[in-house]
Amino acid sequence: MRGGIDLGGTKIQAVVVDDAGEVKGEERVPTPTGGGPPDVADAIAGALRGAADAAGVETAALDGVGVGSPGIVDTRKGVVSSARNLPDWEGSFPLAQTLGAAVGTRVRIENDVQVATNAEFELGAGRPYRSLLGVFWGTGVGGGIILKGRPWIGRGGAGEIGHVVVKKDGARCPCGRRGCMEAYAGRKALEQRARKRVEKGEKTDLFKIMEKRGRDRLTSGIWARALDHNDRVAAKLLDEAVEALGVGVASALNVLDVDAVILGGGLGLRLGEPYRERIEAAMMPHLFSSDDPPAMHMAALGDLGGAIGASLLIRPRRGAVAQPATVS
Amino acid sequence: MRGGIDLGGTKIQAVVVDDAGEVKGEERVPTPTGGGPPDVADAIAGALRGAADAAGVETAALDGVGVGSPGIVDTRKGVVSSARNLPDWEGSFPLAQTLGAAVGTRVRIENDVQVATNAEFELGAGRPYRSLLGVFWGTGVGGGIILKGRPWIGRGGAGEIGHVVVKKDGARCPCGRRGCMEAYAGRKALEQRARKRVEKGEKTDLFKIMEKRGRDRLTSGIWARALDHNDRVAAKLLDEAVEALGVGVASALNVLDVDAVILGGGLGLRLGEPYRERIEAAMMPHLFSSDDPPAMHMAALGDLGGAIGASLLIRPRRGAVAQPATVS
Repeated sequence: MRGGIDLGGTKIQAVVVDDAGEVKGEERVPTPTGGGPPDVADAIAGALRGAADAAGVETAALDGVGVGSPGIVDTRKGVVSSARNLPDWEGSFPLAQTLGAAVGTRVRIENDVQVATNAEFELGAGRPYRSLLGVFWGTGVGGGIILKGRPWIGRGGAGEIGHVVVKKDGARCPCGRRGCMEAYAGRKALEQRARKRVEKGEKTDLFKIMEKRGRDRLTSGIWARALDHNDRVAAKLLDEAVEALGVGVASALNVLDVDAVILGGGLGLRLGEPYRERIEAAMMPHLFSSDDPPAMHMAALGDLGGAIGASLLIRPRRGAVAQPATVS
Repeated sequence: MRGGIDLGGTKIQAVVVDDAGEVKGEERVPTPTGGGPPDVADAIAGALRGAADAAGVETAALDGVGVGSPGIVDTRKGVVSSARNLPDWEGSFPLAQTLGAAVGTRVRIENDVQVATNAEFELGAGRPYRSLLGVFWGTGVGGGIILKGRPWIGRGGAGEIGHVVVKKDGARCPCGRRGCMEAYAGRKALEQRARKRVEKGEKTDLFKIMEKRGRDRLTSGIWARALDHNDRVAAKLLDEAVEALGVGVASALNVLDVDAVILGGGLGLRLGEPYRERIEAAMMPHLFSSDDPPAMHMAALGDLGGAIGASLLIRPRRGAVAQPATVS
């Protein structure tokens, strides 16, 4: 059996899967909002132990644990740097080593978005296609690219669709740049934009819902709930997010012209098909191939996609059988 | 010997090269601004005859002629569609067949920008790199992509960087969309923008220079000359073009993260290294990898790059020797 971790800005999802790729145990914990990388590593280890318990196995008995991580990932060294959506993680941290010591098995780390894209390509909504753009709409907006069946990572930083510019001299992005798609669409930016509107005297239930639910940030669920309550600020900000996603994804497609787009991420999955359709519609006026647009689907593996994808990073030990097909 | 044609919105460049890739004859004619596809085919045939004469060969004796064409190119059928920078070429035209009958040898057509990018990759400034973005700044702004040594064309429409959006709800592009990079940077759009400024009463020498030189549009040379005359409208519009190129190319690089960018095209080559530096500087604030940016170079093959690249589409007949290395 193998472990898989989806390390997100909001939550840590752990799964334990068997050699046939079936999920045998899972656990989800909130990502620490304070402390630093060692606290995050502790939380990951805790989530993995929970998933292993549910699967009836010790973590040390796993063939290994794959981690999909934000930030800049050095897979060979197992080091994660500049993970700005994680607490105090501007520098570099040897996550594979630290986590491996805590759980007693080998750890392999790759970029979270590429891991999730690979999972959708191999097991999810991307299976019919040879080239894909994965769009993960959550705390930020991440992009994963598959070309002719293989991940395209460029010099290591490809797929940064969140930082495709949608408006020159536009809004300040959490990354510090101006006019990025993520500055209008990422959940972190959306929360900043909502706070600004409140400061200007606009009324919204977003922060009341947050308090009522005992959260300290606007999760995807809070945004969805505010929409259900016909909250005008939430609706307006998500309209702007949809518009930005349409422009930015269309720009990326004008460059890549892949077969299909897969929409996932916390907000993407939570808002679902109606928002996928809205983003697709917002894309069309900017798409060079609007007469013959790429297919666009919701991610099929849902919330567990990232963690299942991460488990694919671990190959069963010699003698093990029946693993799912992997990216060649 | 082989022919190569660079079919542009402003001029048609023909070359005849020997089996070692050396240019033995060349001719350049203006692209017809009226008529339709058959008139353009006639002009191409005329240019090729001129180049063949200079090389001391009949066109019918050539191993074939490669054409780099704007618009949507169906290489297998030899058909060019929707070449909006050419006169009355909204529909489809069997250019390979028509031109082949006129010059008495086989014709192979591919996308002009991809042809020019391949030429820079094989013979020019792209030789040290495995992955490239070619940026061709001329009548429009075209992009060609090489990934791991091979052209990436997606479903046939990849590399449309001219239609990467740089400003949501921005200026109208000659393509009809809003806010495209080309709407600010393409020479066709620049001319429209210059005319609007004149209509508003601003003073510029651009159109005087055009008349003095007997041209009916603002060529790259006219823009360069206006800059030499410290023309403020020309300088301002080119400033905006540089800004848009910086944003749009950065966005494309945030997606692709290739090793290098090669800047060519009529305006790019004419304005040269100082403008390459300005575009690079305008790119930096938007580049996700600004700590370790891709290399950026001027195209090395100059004005003949597109035509030489097109000649690479023709493989020598059996028994011929010593052709340049080709994209594997």
